[in-house]
Amino acid sequence: MTHSSKSPTTARQQQRGVLDLTHALAPNIPNWDNLPTAVEVSIEETLEKDAFFSRRISLNEHTGTHFDAPAHVVAGGRTVEQIAPGRLVRPLIVIDVRKQVEHDADYVVTVADVTAWEKQHGEMPHGAVVLACTGWDVRWSSPASFRNADAKGVMHFPGFAEKTAVWLIEHRDIAGLGVDTLSVDPGNSGAYPVHKCCAAHGVYHLECVANLADAPPSGATVVIAPMKLAGGSGAPARILALLP
Amino acid sequence: MTHSSKSPTTARQQQRGVLDLTHALAPNIPNWDNLPTAVEVSIEETLEKDAFFSRRISLNEHTGTHFDAPAHVVAGGRTVEQIAPGRLVRPLIVIDVRKQVEHDADYVVTVADVTAWEKQHGEMPHGAVVLACTGWDVRWSSPASFRNADAKGVMHFPGFAEKTAVWLIEHRDIAGLGVDTLSVDPGNSGAYPVHKCCAAHGVYHLECVANLADAPPSGATVVIAPMKLAGGSGAPARILALLP
Repeated sequence: MTHSSKSPTTARQQQRGVLDLTHALAPNIPNWDNLPTAVEVSIEETLEKDAFFSRRISLNEHTGTHFDAPAHVVAGGRTVEQIAPGRLVRPLIVIDVRKQVEHDADYVVTVADVTAWEKQHGEMPHGAVVLACTGWDVRWSSPASFRNADAKGVMHFPGFAEKTAVWLIEHRDIAGLGVDTLSVDPGNSGAYPVHKCCAAHGVYHLECVANLADAPPSGATVVIAPMKLAGGSGAPARILALLP
Repeated sequence: MTHSSKSPTTARQQQRGVLDLTHALAPNIPNWDNLPTAVEVSIEETLEKDAFFSRRISLNEHTGTHFDAPAHVVAGGRTVEQIAPGRLVRPLIVIDVRKQVEHDADYVVTVADVTAWEKQHGEMPHGAVVLACTGWDVRWSSPASFRNADAKGVMHFPGFAEKTAVWLIEHRDIAGLGVDTLSVDPGNSGAYPVHKCCAAHGVYHLECVANLADAPPSGATVVIAPMKLAGGSGAPARILALLP
């Protein structure tokens, strides 16, 4: 086979790196309600009997690496299929707080963390998707460690401070906010203020994001691809970073 | 709010058009087995009772706009989560055969259709995703019309000829092949040769693709985002075209 010399742009697109920020959906993955089986799977067809192999799957919309639509949190908020496609392809900003989290599982990303990021990398573009790399995804293979619940059942994992979410919405007009833990609010949150203020402003969330330690702090484009569930409060999402 | 002047690249990315090639997943969508309910949905949490709204969903992996992994068809073929992310972001080629289909529901895309496309648009880049626009998605809201089964239960909708799939694999090294109908093989196929030859060569399929009439014949990049199901034979996929 010979290669065409006519398409320099598409050749570059093909060669550009793609980083998968998604955990695989398997039965025993960590989940909010501590279910032993987060994804139920049953075989419906086999190659031997049916000439095709296929399965049926059953899961809550907020399972695995997933997308929260505003309707998850606020009455009248947009459902998954109502999010404009243009809001799903955005500049990717990654804020690395692994050092801060190392000795504080309850750490929340602060406005100072954002300011420090901008001092180093320049002002964030408006309309970006901002993801916090807390290092939590190394715990993914151990649901108990990922949930990190104490004797009273209160979970301890990092999230965002409410003030940070408000600042990013007001000053950087973010399209989405996300994290590698189970929630954009920290595990010990009772009132979920980050969920509420984002949803009220039409900002979506991404939770249980994977591989953020491999993503550049800026310069990539992120494609957020939730299952297009009509009326969905959220959906499992494939998240791909197109590297610069 | 002021806008940053520092990020011309990301600003361009934000403004670039994104076309959604995905049908919404709803209970009564057309499906291969003619089930009255293709997507089962049950409410698990409500804003009133639980402060969050969420649902449980249950469906076959090959429902709605979806991705067939090679494992759907051949023993030992790759499952969904094993497809390299780089194969999911590719140049998009759209072959419009709506005129040919107009008076022939059993039409199959021919090598001559591909040759005619290349005569008009230049040689396809290698490694692309080739999608046929048959016009079938205008029938989506009517499952009976979309399946178009005759009195004997044989469906009649367009697909690809086996020779065309073989040619695209051998001469253009395609990453994926897709269509706006229920199958890359035509509805009246009994042996599914297109499924078999693609799967044997590690080429994935996309079925029930939407809105292809709005996609350019070349120049766009397509992002194929199947749910990342561990061991999946296929998965519902969000398909987004990044317009040039």
